[in-house]
Amino acid sequence: MKNYKMTVCYDGSRFYGWEHQPDIEMTIQGKLESVLKEMLGQEVEVIGCGRTDAGVHAKAYICNVHMETEMSEKEIRDYMNHYLPDDIGVNEVKVASDRFHARYNAMGKTYQYACYIGDKKPVFDRKYVTVLEGKINVEAIKKAASYLVGEHDFKSFCGNPKMKKSTVREIYSIDVTCRNGYMYLTYHGKGFLQYMVRILSGTLIEVGEGKRSPESIIDLIEAKDRSLAGPTAPAKGLTLLKVHYAK
Amino acid sequence: MKNYKMTVCYDGSRFYGWEHQPDIEMTIQGKLESVLKEMLGQEVEVIGCGRTDAGVHAKAYICNVHMETEMSEKEIRDYMNHYLPDDIGVNEVKVASDRFHARYNAMGKTYQYACYIGDKKPVFDRKYVTVLEGKINVEAIKKAASYLVGEHDFKSFCGNPKMKKSTVREIYSIDVTCRNGYMYLTYHGKGFLQYMVRILSGTLIEVGEGKRSPESIIDLIEAKDRSLAGPTAPAKGLTLLKVHYAK
Repeated sequence: MKNYKMTVCYDGSRFYGWEHQPDIEMTIQGKLESVLKEMLGQEVEVIGCGRTDAGVHAKAYICNVHMETEMSEKEIRDYMNHYLPDDIGVNEVKVASDRFHARYNAMGKTYQYACYIGDKKPVFDRKYVTVLEGKINVEAIKKAASYLVGEHDFKSFCGNPKMKKSTVREIYSIDVTCRNGYMYLTYHGKGFLQYMVRILSGTLIEVGEGKRSPESIIDLIEAKDRSLAGPTAPAKGLTLLKVHYAK
Repeated sequence: MKNYKMTVCYDGSRFYGWEHQPDIEMTIQGKLESVLKEMLGQEVEVIGCGRTDAGVHAKAYICNVHMETEMSEKEIRDYMNHYLPDDIGVNEVKVASDRFHARYNAMGKTYQYACYIGDKKPVFDRKYVTVLEGKINVEAIKKAASYLVGEHDFKSFCGNPKMKKSTVREIYSIDVTCRNGYMYLTYHGKGFLQYMVRILSGTLIEVGEGKRSPESIIDLIEAKDRSLAGPTAPAKGLTLLKVHYAK
């Protein structure tokens, strides 16, 4: 029995998120488990690095699977790519230490929220970006983002109103970059609350639109009240870029 | 009455090609004409630079329209972008000389055929590339392409078996480039026959797969027999990149 670490990418548009759910066929975890069941002749559990919401994409999602097979890493990868739908790809399969756990060992994650702010139409990647109308003040967004970096109670940015556990999280960095009519909000943090990256993005977008000031973020964090933050930005703009592990 | 030159991009996946057809709603020309009819309160004809097949994409298709309106170029563009579906975008609207004709004045076109030749899966642009399995000999493709450049009778590469007019065409260049697991075949020519770029691509791919030699292209051109060329490569890999006009 070996423990395989897998790097998976997916276009989340058609899926109800990562986690398998009873009676819902279209989840990433469900698809991976069903292909592996076919391959191995028995059920296995795919352990993910975390949940992604319905409609959210991933460039390098990490998961691990304990399984017994004679196939090589490359053969497993090729088999999976062949039988998975064309909106899920396995980039890499590698034997990991027995103790490797995709979720428990994750030291951090990098998410990117992509907005189109140019005056044309993002025809070819329309499923991966949110289109913003009107002028966006990028400098104001950078300023607002600076207040969010660090360890804070992010209760105002938590999508789960019944969250009983701590809502304190640490954001290591938020990079705001613009290129060819696109604006990217790139978040690197230890972990994020439910919908947190999308609520942060919805709030930062409001700053960019002039609907709230950069400084208002300070009070917003202090308030610990979800109703005072911006809307949950659409899932389609969000992509999990990287999961960080200790070397 | 002014003559407007428009630069249009589209993801051709959902469409039955450029040209409007009776009883088929999903054509690019049909969509443009129906939005302009709404805008102007009367029917107009959109004159295209040429037909693109069902499923073929365009980054900068050129068309022109004679119409009477008080709206500025930017207002026309914004109106059209607002009412067109999100897989068609108008990049630019500009008043042209009265005599400008998108098709008659075109001096040449650049098409790109995109193949994925890496060993992963092109999940995010799967609708715009053809995936090739196995090893591809890119140098052999370059050699074969060199025989196609120039003025030739391309009857072997013409999709219309009943073509009565001349099948002589001139290809100015074919560039074969590779980047990050993708191979691009970029064709610049004065004009192309029906399906010609896709049949050329299907044939060059066979060369890359080792199914025919680069030198076999010489006899193939000579034979003037469509049945001896390769298959018509899938439409989804083809994109019209640019239409050339005299300055």
